[in-house]
Amino acid sequence: MTEIVIHEVGLRDGLQMEQQVVSTEQKLRWIQSLLESGVDIIQLGSFVHPLKVPQMADTDELFKRVPASAEASGKRPVLSALVLNDRGLDRGLAVDVEMFCMGVAASETHSRKNTGRSVVEATEQIICMAQRALGAGKRLQVSVQSAFGCGYEGPVPESRVMGIVRRFLDGGIRAISLADTAGHAVPDRVEALFGAILDAGDDLECACHFHDTYGLALANTYAALKAGVKYFEASVAGLGGCPFTARAGGNLCTEDLVHYLQQTGARRDIDLDRLIALAKDVGAFFGREMEGSVHKVGPMGPADAVPQ
Amino acid sequence: MTEIVIHEVGLRDGLQMEQQVVSTEQKLRWIQSLLESGVDIIQLGSFVHPLKVPQMADTDELFKRVPASAEASGKRPVLSALVLNDRGLDRGLAVDVEMFCMGVAASETHSRKNTGRSVVEATEQIICMAQRALGAGKRLQVSVQSAFGCGYEGPVPESRVMGIVRRFLDGGIRAISLADTAGHAVPDRVEALFGAILDAGDDLECACHFHDTYGLALANTYAALKAGVKYFEASVAGLGGCPFTARAGGNLCTEDLVHYLQQTGARRDIDLDRLIALAKDVGAFFGREMEGSVHKVGPMGPADAVPQ
Repeated sequence: MTEIVIHEVGLRDGLQMEQQVVSTEQKLRWIQSLLESGVDIIQLGSFVHPLKVPQMADTDELFKRVPASAEASGKRPVLSALVLNDRGLDRGLAVDVEMFCMGVAASETHSRKNTGRSVVEATEQIICMAQRALGAGKRLQVSVQSAFGCGYEGPVPESRVMGIVRRFLDGGIRAISLADTAGHAVPDRVEALFGAILDAGDDLECACHFHDTYGLALANTYAALKAGVKYFEASVAGLGGCPFTARAGGNLCTEDLVHYLQQTGARRDIDLDRLIALAKDVGAFFGREMEGSVHKVGPMGPADAVPQ
Repeated sequence: MTEIVIHEVGLRDGLQMEQQVVSTEQKLRWIQSLLESGVDIIQLGSFVHPLKVPQMADTDELFKRVPASAEASGKRPVLSALVLNDRGLDRGLAVDVEMFCMGVAASETHSRKNTGRSVVEATEQIICMAQRALGAGKRLQVSVQSAFGCGYEGPVPESRVMGIVRRFLDGGIRAISLADTAGHAVPDRVEALFGAILDAGDDLECACHFHDTYGLALANTYAALKAGVKYFEASVAGLGGCPFTARAGGNLCTEDLVHYLQQTGARRDIDLDRLIALAKDVGAFFGREMEGSVHKVGPMGPADAVPQ
């Protein structure tokens, strides 16, 4: 069975969508809950220009302060960050980020809005950045964003995604993520596309990042699992959405994902109650009902008790 | 590819949960929208004692009045009803129901609360009723309710479900439905259990009925599709839940299901806009935000435009 890795991205992909600024101290309290929950990777933020996304202005500070709390908790998840350009990579290297995430949009409109570059230009730039990160001994994940459709342009052909992925592979990248930024993925295409990528090499690892705009995030998760994807990105309370795409729904809810994986027996080691409490706390902070099911109705009960 | 059949059950499984009584005239307006949408089967109600579920008291009248509207619309979906006992079957036969749905709960607690009988007693009674319906030349579907878990008892072993299904098959029943009354199904078990049933005979047809309590209804739908299930039950606006189980969430949303099937190309013939308008109308009637995604955010755009 595939070993499944949970990558919490709420602090980055979740919070960048929010107008209400979250203080560094508040983020640290949420990170403490995440540390105690036992999720595998926590994305602390992105190294983007603070004027562009003020919510991410304290990413450097978080990377300086969180490792000590992690040590004190006795928990040692990987801490990741998103970087968009060389300047961001410099900042990340300066604060010793363990895992770098970076990506290219498959749609021209999304690429230009996100980076000011065409898809081809952005791909070449990302490959250079990826090689710098690998050269520095860092963990790395490179994604194709809007891989299943674009909020501006609509459908994205599989051939275009595979073209970008092949360029990544030629550039020595072995961890490929597909991000469904606009929530356009359907499970049939998810299973086919990840299957095609994983067929391209025995040493590849795949990650997925789904948004639940049309209610399909968990269906797409199941399809990705079946295709052999190992890394699953999600946000507590379904926080999120991308400010650079039109009508992006929230991320797959971490607690709904963990609840599902508990029921199948794949991940019973994560503290779901802790994640549910965190989701409620996040909802109380923003003063609105958050996405997701399990933090509202509670878990279905211990799967350990399943008789056969 | 499997031909996929959409069975709208909101008027029965949806409305039986609602305290606010829906008039016959209001139901007829909603049925008119369903007729015009092009869904394949419409469940008009259940033949249950009117004092037990007052919302279903007009089921006989609906079966007398709807066929004429269907004829006038030029649309001819199958009209189905749920029956719980011989008295209900008599009533259904008297108004010439085309398709009878009936079932047995896999959990003793659910069975006793629903019918006052043990699972074994209920199974034998349902087989007799099924044979009467078949003898009258009717379409028939027999379900195992709480097939993936019970809101009272928790997990339900697969072996118990398969035992009931084998008894159905021995009784000459060829259309088997699994109903996830409590929303406990996970896609892995859905694919395995339907696979096991469909392996039991080439002439079998399977139906599924999922509730979205934990956000897994569309994931379970994808798993059922992969296993070869053909009939999909859903409720407009995710109406529903079972009054005889604890903490039952709404049904899989019809418009979310149809939207998904449009995107894969499996069902582009159903009028999604009509279903979205109906979901909004149902929400306005009950004065609350309904479940589901697509009636809130709109469809992702025509899948016909997918370039390859």
